[in-house]
Amino acid sequence: MTTTAQSEAVERATRVREASRRLATTPADRKNAALEAIAAALEAQTDTILAINGPELERAEANGVAGSFLDRMALTPERIASIAGDVRAVADLPDPVGQIEELQTRPNGLQVGRMRVPLGVIGAIYESRPNVTIDIASICLKSGNGVLLRSGSDAHASSAVLAAIAARAVEEAGLPAHAVEFIQSTDRAEVGEMLRAADQIDLVIPRGGADLIRRVRDEATMPVITGGIGVCHTYIDADADLEMAEPIVVNAKTQRPSVCNAMDTLLVHRDVAAEFVPHITRVLGERGVTVHADARAGALAGEAPNAVPVEDEDYDREWLSLDCSLRIVDSLDDALAHIETHGSGHSEAIVSDSYASAQRFLREADASAVFVNASTYFNDGAQFGLGCEVGISTGKMHARGPMGLRELTSYKWVVLGRGQIRT
Amino acid sequence: MTTTAQSEAVERATRVREASRRLATTPADRKNAALEAIAAALEAQTDTILAINGPELERAEANGVAGSFLDRMALTPERIASIAGDVRAVADLPDPVGQIEELQTRPNGLQVGRMRVPLGVIGAIYESRPNVTIDIASICLKSGNGVLLRSGSDAHASSAVLAAIAARAVEEAGLPAHAVEFIQSTDRAEVGEMLRAADQIDLVIPRGGADLIRRVRDEATMPVITGGIGVCHTYIDADADLEMAEPIVVNAKTQRPSVCNAMDTLLVHRDVAAEFVPHITRVLGERGVTVHADARAGALAGEAPNAVPVEDEDYDREWLSLDCSLRIVDSLDDALAHIETHGSGHSEAIVSDSYASAQRFLREADASAVFVNASTYFNDGAQFGLGCEVGISTGKMHARGPMGLRELTSYKWVVLGRGQIRT
Repeated sequence: MTTTAQSEAVERATRVREASRRLATTPADRKNAALEAIAAALEAQTDTILAINGPELERAEANGVAGSFLDRMALTPERIASIAGDVRAVADLPDPVGQIEELQTRPNGLQVGRMRVPLGVIGAIYESRPNVTIDIASICLKSGNGVLLRSGSDAHASSAVLAAIAARAVEEAGLPAHAVEFIQSTDRAEVGEMLRAADQIDLVIPRGGADLIRRVRDEATMPVITGGIGVCHTYIDADADLEMAEPIVVNAKTQRPSVCNAMDTLLVHRDVAAEFVPHITRVLGERGVTVHADARAGALAGEAPNAVPVEDEDYDREWLSLDCSLRIVDSLDDALAHIETHGSGHSEAIVSDSYASAQRFLREADASAVFVNASTYFNDGAQFGLGCEVGISTGKMHARGPMGLRELTSYKWVVLGRGQIRT
Repeated sequence: MTTTAQSEAVERATRVREASRRLATTPADRKNAALEAIAAALEAQTDTILAINGPELERAEANGVAGSFLDRMALTPERIASIAGDVRAVADLPDPVGQIEELQTRPNGLQVGRMRVPLGVIGAIYESRPNVTIDIASICLKSGNGVLLRSGSDAHASSAVLAAIAARAVEEAGLPAHAVEFIQSTDRAEVGEMLRAADQIDLVIPRGGADLIRRVRDEATMPVITGGIGVCHTYIDADADLEMAEPIVVNAKTQRPSVCNAMDTLLVHRDVAAEFVPHITRVLGERGVTVHADARAGALAGEAPNAVPVEDEDYDREWLSLDCSLRIVDSLDDALAHIETHGSGHSEAIVSDSYASAQRFLREADASAVFVNASTYFNDGAQFGLGCEVGISTGKMHARGPMGLRELTSYKWVVLGRGQIRT
């Protein structure tokens, strides 16, 4: 617990709540001008940002932060330009706020529709990736939401300077001050305070690893969008075009193994296993992939140097590396049962030329995105046409899959009458 | 806590979860046949139902249950026929499950859309109104969701027999057994168990008074749709057509004062107060309404016998009776500020012939439904064209306003490819 009467998190959240009321009705052109101001300020203050990021990287390295995390923390002139470019891309997207959907005229002449409105205040808790600061702030602003940011401690100074630049640009562009707030304290208790501030914060989005997501889900008193954990399957059906299957599997596993939509387990129907398993094991081996195979698949893979026996618990693993599990199944039913047991509801794919199998898989595989004859690596806001995303939700409430601008809004019913009463 | 190893609530919820997996992919015609079977069984077993409801009513009366609650508990042949009719009306509605929305073709040829899917398992906790048992069960079944029902204790036996009839009809019609389960124990601890069963229950809907809603919101570990508490305003603008305003106010207040979309506070712009306040006070008085007026309105109402001084806390009251608060405001800004402070986000109306005022009110009044020149009493699933509803949500997450069939579903992204990979 903090020793102040009110925690920094609650104090800032209260200010964001206040600002969010005015932000909610700010027209798109003014929000876009503020986003352009953020992009321009990031470019103009590149040297300031680098002067803070450089020493922070050194401290992190001295503290033993691992190489891949250091890389995610590092800012360069090119990366800052790229962040600014992303902000301008968000500005270019259509504004969902105020759009009226499905306006209908009822028999009594009432016009009834649903108008998109912002959720209000988003709380974002993320790990030590400074770029996420600007990423989330720009998407929240565009969708009319205030945002309270909490950065991981290793990149706290870099995130803080980016947040300060954004907050100043927002205010100078005439948007409500405090629409973007950043928690300065690195005290972990502030996260707890944030997660109890249900009166100020409408939705919390944790961006990070499984431990962060679990803590947020368990402690938050407001709705949480969880996701980012993908135990993803690609199932090669008896009727699969195996020439199509190979690039889909290779892409899903190797294009970017560290992301949540990468393939973790390859399921192969027994009818095509003798032909496909030795081939795909070799092809994946050429890309550096270790295949954790069940007994039947292992026998088919023969002496492949990259094939090792699978452990039962591997089926529940999100590998995030050049590894995958491989299992032979006797039927589509078995594949669906395996996915139901071991999947995390993220991304599931079938490769099949059977209309019936494809239809069943689409209906029955329960995940944020289900693919027929395509790579799970496509589960992404930009790829689905949303333009941007704050993450991929694996929950079913409110929004599922990539969360873009519209997914950060709610709606209200609008009813246009000319004196109607209900009798 | 219960003394058994596993509570009844969790045991039944587990069975519903299992059944819900098959129910999710059950086609509409089979769900509709099951709904027809429920309706027919209710009609055929009317005598059985009445034989249980009659003595239960007597026990409740002996226990001191008040008249309006007794009336809500009472079943008659006509009411049972009406419940059966409502079930058939749900069967007649289009099935949202499996519908694919906004299917688009991406530049790479991928077809990407969103398929409606059930949420899974709904937990319903309601007070002593047996008809709610069938109401919620039929809407959940039609939307492909399993449902665990928990009834208030006064009407427990009546709700139990209705649930048993529904469950048997569902099973005999070939739908998964245990798609509808009813908690037999009246132990209050079972509610706590239910609210902790986040692995089995996807969404909890409390239907009842403020105490129930608060308990559910505070204790539930899964998402909750709260609503049903409406502190609703009707604002008479400076540019209002006062002849139109009168029936709108009278309808919103008097047509059904006990419901959540009834008007609680009338706000009148000072420019029309001298003309409108004395008139509407008299008209409301003729309908038996006590007007709790602020000082300025009270002075204008003069000697009206139904005008009494408003207390500050009245502005936060949901009257649920033939009472309303009345306040004169100096501007639209003041009206919006009053609504922001005292409204519960349920239903807000403006009466105005000013385009600018109507537009501002639509944008800025923050509620599940916002009305221009119409009665707030229209905030209802049937009136909005949803056909049915399980309640009116005043939260912003997932669904807002009347919750019909579509609002009890989620979606998954479906992606149809022909071998695409992402580079």
